[in-house]
Amino acid sequence: MTPPRLRHQIRVLLGDEIAFGPGKAQLLEAIGRHGSISAAARDMGMSYTRAWALVDAMNRSFRAPLVLTATGGKRGGGAQISDTGHEVLATYRDIENAARDAANTAFERLQPMLRDDLPES
Amino acid sequence: MTPPRLRHQIRVLLGDEIAFGPGKAQLLEAIGRHGSISAAARDMGMSYTRAWALVDAMNRSFRAPLVLTATGGKRGGGAQISDTGHEVLATYRDIENAARDAANTAFERLQPMLRDDLPES
Repeated sequence: MTPPRLRHQIRVLLGDEIAFGPGKAQLLEAIGRHGSISAAARDMGMSYTRAWALVDAMNRSFRAPLVLTATGGKRGGGAQISDTGHEVLATYRDIENAARDAANTAFERLQPMLRDDLPES
Repeated sequence: MTPPRLRHQIRVLLGDEIAFGPGKAQLLEAIGRHGSISAAARDMGMSYTRAWALVDAMNRSFRAPLVLTATGGKRGGGAQISDTGHEVLATYRDIENAARDAANTAFERLQPMLRDDLPES
């Protein structure tokens, strides 16, 4: 069995809105790879409508948009990550890495209490 | 509007099973307060069946059970947190606090990029 591990999900909340989190980070990276929201949505097995809603929420949450879309309407042109988008993504990964590193010391105290052979229910 | 904040959800994974996480921690605390799985489930607006499944998953994931149930069957007797349960809960809170503290430095770099007035969609 794979050794026990921690999964961190860190979300940036702005009021009731999730400004940024694991799904938005993944989508932003996919937009960077594909240069298109629709291709990024396809890659993530997500509807275009859902991807657009996530992009819209990100763009509204920050002072500058994270995703820049070319003219030609929502579906028409390509899309790319803005400078702010790159900075937000890098800072979010720094937040995740800092949290992971810091959590490991306490997690080492938890590990001996865990089974290494999980019995069937 | 409330200032931007981070929400951490940290889960302990043992293979494919979530051995411990935010929901199980909250349930465990509620069992400690109420001395009963069914009262804890009610308090959390959760079905007894769901609460029992979570307790069963926790108890199977660790070398010693986190929740001790009195004789009288599943619903008959009371329930309490074991010594291991108290230790796991305290260590999990240490993991969360360490992650939160460590994440804050990088989060301070993110904050100036966030809006403080969220426009309507």
